[in-house]
Amino acid sequence: MRRIKLTVAYDGSDYCGWQLQPGFPTIEGELNKALTQIEGREISVIGASRTDSGVHSLGNVAVFDSDSTIPADRFPYVVNRLLPEDIRVMKGEEVPSDFHPRHCDTRKTYEYTIYVSDISNPKERLYAYRHYAPLDTDLMNEAASVLIGTHDFTSFCSAKTDKEDKTRTIYELNVRQEKNKYIIHVEGNGFLYNMVRIIAGTLLRAGEGEMSAKKIEEALLLKDRALAGPTLPACGLTLVGITYL
Amino acid sequence: MRRIKLTVAYDGSDYCGWQLQPGFPTIEGELNKALTQIEGREISVIGASRTDSGVHSLGNVAVFDSDSTIPADRFPYVVNRLLPEDIRVMKGEEVPSDFHPRHCDTRKTYEYTIYVSDISNPKERLYAYRHYAPLDTDLMNEAASVLIGTHDFTSFCSAKTDKEDKTRTIYELNVRQEKNKYIIHVEGNGFLYNMVRIIAGTLLRAGEGEMSAKKIEEALLLKDRALAGPTLPACGLTLVGITYL
Repeated sequence: MRRIKLTVAYDGSDYCGWQLQPGFPTIEGELNKALTQIEGREISVIGASRTDSGVHSLGNVAVFDSDSTIPADRFPYVVNRLLPEDIRVMKGEEVPSDFHPRHCDTRKTYEYTIYVSDISNPKERLYAYRHYAPLDTDLMNEAASVLIGTHDFTSFCSAKTDKEDKTRTIYELNVRQEKNKYIIHVEGNGFLYNMVRIIAGTLLRAGEGEMSAKKIEEALLLKDRALAGPTLPACGLTLVGITYL
Repeated sequence: MRRIKLTVAYDGSDYCGWQLQPGFPTIEGELNKALTQIEGREISVIGASRTDSGVHSLGNVAVFDSDSTIPADRFPYVVNRLLPEDIRVMKGEEVPSDFHPRHCDTRKTYEYTIYVSDISNPKERLYAYRHYAPLDTDLMNEAASVLIGTHDFTSFCSAKTDKEDKTRTIYELNVRQEKNKYIIHVEGNGFLYNMVRIIAGTLLRAGEGEMSAKKIEEALLLKDRALAGPTLPACGLTLVGITYL
């Protein structure tokens, strides 16, 4: 028996998120189905990040125990034949038998993409959030710098979170402009429910000149969700990758 | 009665191309349906470019005659409410009553996107063609330079074309690399059936070192489709825009 770690990319547009929900299409459900067929017994993967409905991934992680003789690095080719084309296993590796993708120190990277257009662009609609007016990247980066470091992110997570401890560390947070797109890049040791989408909404407000860095510092200190910006839609969000430290 | 010109963007993934085919989803069919509802009588748009199934657009053109009092520049907002979200009217303008979008001198711009990855990337799959190995951009641009100018493009169009005269002028043709993507940019006075996709396939072969500029010059002169590269899939192709001269 070997423990196998799969790196999983997906277009989340047509899924009700990662987590298994019987009767609904989920990434976890599709992986379980494909692996069960390969292994010849019921497989339930353990996922690293339970991304929401409509959120995309370039590098989520799923772990399972294999009885097969398939070399770990061949798993992508075997599993991809059984997966729908909007889910792809990018990499397979053998890991220690006690490896758990959520009980490890990690560095997670997310990107949130905003594009500027009067009218929605059909080719962008699935992977970016449309805003009607240009944003000020300098103001966005000034605001971002306030959030870098170790903080209590109560103001920056959904009230629906089930986590007691809301302290997280953001290692990097910056905004770059590429033509009519703004890409918010964030790396941290973990993110609370909706945290990246709320950070994106807050930086959007900053870029409009509607929310100063000082106001964002205040929002952080006062631990009140109402003081941060809106939760932007899932489509703009991509889990870029997870590094195990 | 005013003649209205609409600039139309779409994600062609879920359509059987531009041209009306009763019983199948087409861009023209969706536009006709929306405009018929607005005008209260049967409307059939005249399209500029009958893009194939799966091909995308940022700026195709559709023309129709309106009896309504809607200002030309408000048409996008009115029509978009009735269109599926993968089709958007980006612009509305009044044009002379004898304007015909195919019987005018134009400059058409297309882009074909190739990306390099061992395994298909779910977020790229609808809008780019995957190739497994890096390409040589210099070789691609050298090959491209052979095709610029006025030539008989018999070797670079599908045998299924119904056009007698296969002479076309390419004003610009170049390849740029953006990270793991190669974007083939082409502008010309018109393109034959599958011509851009065959040019893309030929430049791909050139970028692999499999087809020299000299061989491509020969292919052009010998007027034999078999001598040019393969027709790449529709998903990588986008009609960027049409300029009326």
